[in-house]
Amino acid sequence: MAPKVGIIMGSDSDLPVMKEAAKILEEFGVEYEITIVSAHRTPERMYEYAKRARERGIEVIIAGAGGAAHLPGMTASITTLPVIGVPVKSRALNGLDSLLSIVQMPAGVPVATVAINNAKNAALLALRILSIKYPEIAEKLEKYMEDMRRTVEEKAKRLEEVGWAKYLGEDD
Amino acid sequence: MAPKVGIIMGSDSDLPVMKEAAKILEEFGVEYEITIVSAHRTPERMYEYAKRARERGIEVIIAGAGGAAHLPGMTASITTLPVIGVPVKSRALNGLDSLLSIVQMPAGVPVATVAINNAKNAALLALRILSIKYPEIAEKLEKYMEDMRRTVEEKAKRLEEVGWAKYLGEDD
Amino acid sequence: MAPKVGIIMGSDSDLPVMKEAAKILEEFGVEYEITIVSAHRTPERMYEYAKRARERGIEVIIAGAGGAAHLPGMTASITTLPVIGVPVKSRALNGLDSLLSIVQMPAGVPVATVAINNAKNAALLALRILSIKYPEIAEKLEKYMEDMRRTVEEKAKRLEEVGWAKYLGEDD
Amino acid sequence: MAPKVGIIMGSDSDLPVMKEAAKILEEFGVEYEITIVSAHRTPERMYEYAKRARERGIEVIIAGAGGAAHLPGMTASITTLPVIGVPVKSRALNGLDSLLSIVQMPAGVPVATVAINNAKNAALLALRILSIKYPEIAEKLEKYMEDMRRTVEEKAKRLEEVGWAKYLGEDD
Amino acid sequence: MAPKVGIIMGSDSDLPVMKEAAKILEEFGVEYEITIVSAHRTPERMYEYAKRARERGIEVIIAGAGGAAHLPGMTASITTLPVIGVPVKSRALNGLDSLLSIVQMPAGVPVATVAINNAKNAALLALRILSIKYPEIAEKLEKYMEDMRRTVEEKAKRLEEVGWAKYLGEDD
Amino acid sequence: MAPKVGIIMGSDSDLPVMKEAAKILEEFGVEYEITIVSAHRTPERMYEYAKRARERGIEVIIAGAGGAAHLPGMTASITTLPVIGVPVKSRALNGLDSLLSIVQMPAGVPVATVAINNAKNAALLALRILSIKYPEIAEKLEKYMEDMRRTVEEKAKRLEEVGWAKYLGEDD
Amino acid sequence: MAPKVGIIMGSDSDLPVMKEAAKILEEFGVEYEITIVSAHRTPERMYEYAKRARERGIEVIIAGAGGAAHLPGMTASITTLPVIGVPVKSRALNGLDSLLSIVQMPAGVPVATVAINNAKNAALLALRILSIKYPEIAEKLEKYMEDMRRTVEEKAKRLEEVGWAKYLGEDD
Amino acid sequence: MAPKVGIIMGSDSDLPVMKEAAKILEEFGVEYEITIVSAHRTPERMYEYAKRARERGIEVIIAGAGGAAHLPGMTASITTLPVIGVPVKSRALNGLDSLLSIVQMPAGVPVATVAINNAKNAALLALRILSIKYPEIAEKLEKYMEDMRRTVEEKAKRLEEVGWAKYLGEDD
Repeated sequence: MAPKVGIIMGSDSDLPVMKEAAKILEEFGVEYEITIVSAHRTPERMYEYAKRARERGIEVIIAGAGGAAHLPGMTASITTLPVIGVPVKSRALNGLDSLLSIVQMPAGVPVATVAINNAKNAALLALRILSIKYPEIAEKLEKYMEDMRRTVEEKAKRLEEVGWAKYLGEDD
Repeated sequence: MAPKVGIIMGSDSDLPVMKEAAKILEEFGVEYEITIVSAHRTPERMYEYAKRARERGIEVIIAGAGGAAHLPGMTASITTLPVIGVPVKSRALNGLDSLLSIVQMPAGVPVATVAINNAKNAALLALRILSIKYPEIAEKLEKYMEDMRRTVEEKAKRLEEVGWAKYLGEDD
Repeated sequence: MAPKVGIIMGSDSDLPVMKEAAKILEEFGVEYEITIVSAHRTPERMYEYAKRARERGIEVIIAGAGGAAHLPGMTASITTLPVIGVPVKSRALNGLDSLLSIVQMPAGVPVATVAINNAKNAALLALRILSIKYPEIAEKLEKYMEDMRRTVEEKAKRLEEVGWAKYLGEDD
Repeated sequence: MAPKVGIIMGSDSDLPVMKEAAKILEEFGVEYEITIVSAHRTPERMYEYAKRARERGIEVIIAGAGGAAHLPGMTASITTLPVIGVPVKSRALNGLDSLLSIVQMPAGVPVATVAINNAKNAALLALRILSIKYPEIAEKLEKYMEDMRRTVEEKAKRLEEVGWAKYLGEDD
Repeated sequence: MAPKVGIIMGSDSDLPVMKEAAKILEEFGVEYEITIVSAHRTPERMYEYAKRARERGIEVIIAGAGGAAHLPGMTASITTLPVIGVPVKSRALNGLDSLLSIVQMPAGVPVATVAINNAKNAALLALRILSIKYPEIAEKLEKYMEDMRRTVEEKAKRLEEVGWAKYLGEDD
Repeated sequence: MAPKVGIIMGSDSDLPVMKEAAKILEEFGVEYEITIVSAHRTPERMYEYAKRARERGIEVIIAGAGGAAHLPGMTASITTLPVIGVPVKSRALNGLDSLLSIVQMPAGVPVATVAINNAKNAALLALRILSIKYPEIAEKLEKYMEDMRRTVEEKAKRLEEVGWAKYLGEDD
Repeated sequence: MAPKVGIIMGSDSDLPVMKEAAKILEEFGVEYEITIVSAHRTPERMYEYAKRARERGIEVIIAGAGGAAHLPGMTASITTLPVIGVPVKSRALNGLDSLLSIVQMPAGVPVATVAINNAKNAALLALRILSIKYPEIAEKLEKYMEDMRRTVEEKAKRLEEVGWAKYLGEDD
Repeated sequence: MAPKVGIIMGSDSDLPVMKEAAKILEEFGVEYEITIVSAHRTPERMYEYAKRARERGIEVIIAGAGGAAHLPGMTASITTLPVIGVPVKSRALNGLDSLLSIVQMPAGVPVATVAINNAKNAALLALRILSIKYPEIAEKLEKYMEDMRRTVEEKAKRLEEVGWAKYLGEDD
C-alpha cells in the first residue's frame, strides 16, 4: 500500500527525534515513508520530493529541521499538501531559532508547526488531518485520547492513595 | 451546506486579525462559521464547541488567541479534529507569549501553529488539509500558488525595467 | 479534616518539582491534597476538580505545569478561588514558555504566578493567603521568616569569622 | 471602615496602569487605599508601609513597578501578607525586565505575579484571596464571571448573526 | 557591462530597506542588478537565479528577507558565490526571527549575515569582497572610511565648540 | 578647571540620550567634557582619547553606544579609569543588543553598565565614584537622594488626599 | 586597616562565584570584607549595612545576587557609595533575570552592573574606582593590564609557532 | 606562499571552536595563518594586525570571539578587507550575546556573521569570497557541495532501505 505520510528531515542527526513520528504512525497502522531530504545540501532532491509527493499518494508531509530550518517552509512552497514542521532543538539556541525559522512563514505558504522536538505530536497532527478522510483513524484517535485520559487517572489515583513520597520512592 | 471550517477566537478584539481567515475561505468558496469562544471566560461553551464540532460536520478548527493563549490547545484536547492555532500579537510581548502558549503543547495533543497574526495562513493551511479529501480544493490551491508566482514575477519584471527609484516613486 | 490547599499538576513528571509545595504545607501543619489533573489529557477531570473545589472546602489551588502550560489558567477560569501557578522548567526553553503561558492571563481571570520551578514559594504564598483568615498561620509565617533571617545571619557570622576560603573548604 | 487592600506603586507614572486595580475594587465595594511607595527613592517609607500593613488591617497588598522592579519583592520580604506584583511595561524592554524582576523571587519570599500591566487582574486576584474569608466577595466574583460569560456569549451571538464584516462595520 | 552584484529580495515590501544597498553600489560605481525573487512564492525562479548567477558574471549576491527568511540560505545552497543575507525587520518580532533564520545556517552552507535592516552594510560588505579582486574598489573603500572618519571628527569638533545644548538647538 | 568626567558617544544621534548625563553633572557643578568618539568610524581617535584620558585629568569616562556597541568596552581596554557604559536603545532590538554588547565583557576588562538609555544614572554613578575622593560631592548626593525622597512623599501625600481620579484629572 | 571594599551576596550559594572578587582584591593587596546580606531574608540587616557603609570607611560595595536580584539596587538606594552589581547565573533563565533585575534601575539610583557571574570584573571595576583616589592602585592596574597583554602575546606566539593541532595536543 | 586567510580569536579558549576553520582551509589547500588577537587585552596588537593585513597579502579575515565580542567589528573598522565574524558560544547566554555583539554593526562597517560556533562555515564563506578571484577554489567548492549532496543521498538511501530502527541500531 502506498504511504500516506512522508517523514523527511534535514540530516540523519535528526533521526533520534523524528523516529517518534514513525513510531506513532506504526502504532496507528498508517503507512509512511521516512527519508533524509536536506534543503541546503540537496535542494534539487527537496524540489523533486515536494513536487511529486501528492501524485505519489502522499497526503501529509512531516518535515523536521534545526537551526536556520528551511526544509518545512521550502517544501510547503513547492507542494500544496499540508506540511507539518518539527523544530529540532539546536545546540546553541535550544531550538528557538528552529522554531522561528519554521513558524514565521509569510502569508501565502503555511507550515503547521508543532513544539520543539515534538515529532510525536507531528504524527498525531498528521493523523488528525487524515481523520477527516479516513473515519477509522478518527476512531483510533478517540481511543488514543481515551487511553491517555485513563493513564493519567490511574496515576492520579495511585498518587492520591500512596502520597507523593511513596510515589517517588522517597518514603523511608 | 454545513460549514467545513470553524473559526473561533478568544475575544472580538481578535476579529480584525481573524477576519483574514474568513476572507480566504470566502475566496475559495469554502463554507465556514465564525464566532467567539473564550477559553477563560466561557470554558463550558468552549467545551461544548470542541466536543460537538466533528459531529456537526466541522473538519478543521481555526482558533486565534493572544497572551496566555489557551483556546487552541484546550480545543485540541477535547476534539480529535485538526486544530490550527493563530497566535494573536499581544500588547506587551508582541505575540511571543501567544506563540509559545500555543505551539509548545505537550506530547499527545498537537496544535498546528502558524505565524503570529497570520490568520490568512491558517485558512490556507485549513484548505491544504481539506484538499486531501476534496480534489477541487487542491486544484484551487495550485491556481492560488500559481497566481502568487505570477504576481511576484510581474513585480520583478517591473522593478527590473524601471529600477528601484521609479518603482518606489522616488525618481525625480 | 478537609484539606485547605489542593496541589495539582499536569503530569507525574512534575512531581519532583511540586513535592516541595507539599513539604512546606506539611511543615506548617496545613492539610492539603495532591493529585494529577491534566488540562490537555483530562479536560473533564480538570473541569470537575475546579468546579467543585470551593464546595469541597479547598481555599487555595496550587497548579504546576510546563511548556504550553494551561492548567493554572484554565483552573482559574472555572473556580473563583485563588489559583497559584508554578511554571515547571521545560526541556527546550527552560520554562520561559511555561512562565509566559501561565502569567500572561487576559483581564478577568488572574493566576498568581511564582518563579519557574519554585513550588516552595507557591506553598508559602498559599500560606500567606490563608493567613488572612487563620491567625495561627500568620504567626507561623512570622516565625518562618524569623528563622530564615537567623539562618542567614549565622552563615554570615561564620563567613565573616572564617573567611571565604575556609567557608568553602578551600583553605589549605 | 479600614481598607482591606493596599495599592502601592513605585512612581506616579505607574498610576494610569494601577488605577485599573482601584476601579475593580470600587466596583466590588471593597475598601482600599492607594499611594506611592518607591523601593529605590523611599526605602524607609517602603519598610514602614510593609512592616505595619497587617496591624493596620490591610489583608492584601498590590504593588506595581517597572524596569528593575523591586517594590513587590521587597514588600513581600518585610510583611507576611500576600503581595501581588504588577509588572509595569517598561520603555525599552516592554516589561520583560519588570516581569522577571518580580516573578523570579528566591525560595522563601513569594510574590503573586500577574501579567504585564494587568492591574485589573491584580485586583481580581486580591478579591479571590479575600473571598476565602468574606463569602459575599465570593458571591460577587461568581456574578462577575457570570457577567463576563454572558458578555462574550452576546457578542458571539451577534457575530454569528451579522457576520464579521458587519460586526466590524466594513460591510458596504 | 555585466553586473557584478545581484540584489534580490523576497517581496517588493522589502524594497525601501534594500534600496540602500543599491544606493551604495551606485555611489561606488559598481554595476548591479536588482529584482524580486521569492523563495516561497517563486521557488523555481530562485533556483534558476542562484544556479546561473556565477555564469552570468555575478560575483556577490545580496539577499534580503523577513520572518522565516529562507531566501539567503536557499540561494547559498544552490550557488557557490558568496551570499550576503539582510534580515528585514518583521512586524511582530522586530527581525529577531529574520536574523536567526538567516544566520543560523548549518555547517556546509554559509550566509554572510549583516545587521537587521542594514542593507547599506550588505553593499559595503559586497564591496570589501570585490576589493580583493578589484584594487580600485579597495581604494574607494579606504576613501569611504576616511570620509566617515572626517565626518565624525567634524561633528565632534562642532559639539566640543558649541556644547550639547546649542548642537541640539536647545540653547535658549 | 580641568574636566573630571568625559562623556563620549559613538554618534551624534546618541546626543539626545546622552545629554541627560551632561545635565546632571551641570546640576552638581562638576566639570565635564562631551564629544563624539566612534569605535568603528574613528578607531584611532578612540585609542588616543582613552590612552590620554587619565593624564589629562579625567577621572571617569561615560561612554554611550547602540547596537553592536563596542565603544565602552574598547575604551575600558585602553585606559585603567572607570568606564561607565550606556546602552543606547537600538531601532530593531530595543537596546537588548546594545546592553549585551556592553555588559558581557570578558574577565579582565570591566565596564560599569547602567540601564538602557539611562544616561542620567551614568552621571549619578560617576558622581558616586567621584564622591569617594571629593567629600562635597558625597554631600550633594545625600541631598539629591533626600530631594528625590521628598518629591515622592509629596506626590504620595497628594495622591492619598485627592484620590487617583482627581490626581489624573479624570474626576468629573 | 579598615576595609575599602565590601563584598556582599544574597546567599552563601553565591560564594563560589563571588570569591573571585575577593581573590582579585587580595592579589592587589586591597583590604575588603565579605559577608552575606539578603535583601529578601534579612531586609533590616541590608538596610543597616548600606546605611553605615560609608561611615565605616567602605568606599565601594560589590553586591552579587541571582534571579529577582534586588540586593544591588536596594543597597544603592540606601547608600550614596558606588555599588557594583554582579548578576549571578540562575538555574532556569541562565542569569538573564538576574542581569535585568540589576541593570534596569530607574533614573535616580544607579548600579554599576558587570557581566553575568563575572565577580572578577566587579573587583577590577572596584579597583578602577579606587584608583582615582589611590595612585598606587592605578599603577598596579597598569601592570595588571600589561601582564594580561603579555600572556596573550606569549600564547599567540606559541600558537603561531606550533600550530593549532599541537597547541591543542591533537597532533599525532 | 603568503597566507590568504587570517584566522584570529580573542582567547585560546576559542581554539577548539576555531580550529574547524583551519581544518577546512587545509582541506582546500588554501594557505592561512592562525593566531590570538584580543580586542580587550591586546588592543594595539589588534590595531596592528588589522592595519597591515591587506599589505601582508591577507585577503579575508576570520575573527572569532564570545560574550561582548568586539574583535570582528573592531578589526573591520581598521581594515577594508572582508571580515567574517564567528560568535563563540558563551557560558551564560549560549552565544546570543556574542551573536548580537558581532552582527548588529552600525552602518558603515560590516561584519559577515555566521552561525554561533560555526567556524567551519566561516572558512567556507572565506573560500566563496576567494572563489571570485581564484577559479580553482570555485571548482573545489562545486565539488565540496557535490560531495555533501552525495553523502546525504547515500544516507537517505540507506535509511529508506533499512528503516529507522536498524539505521539507529535499535532493531532487535
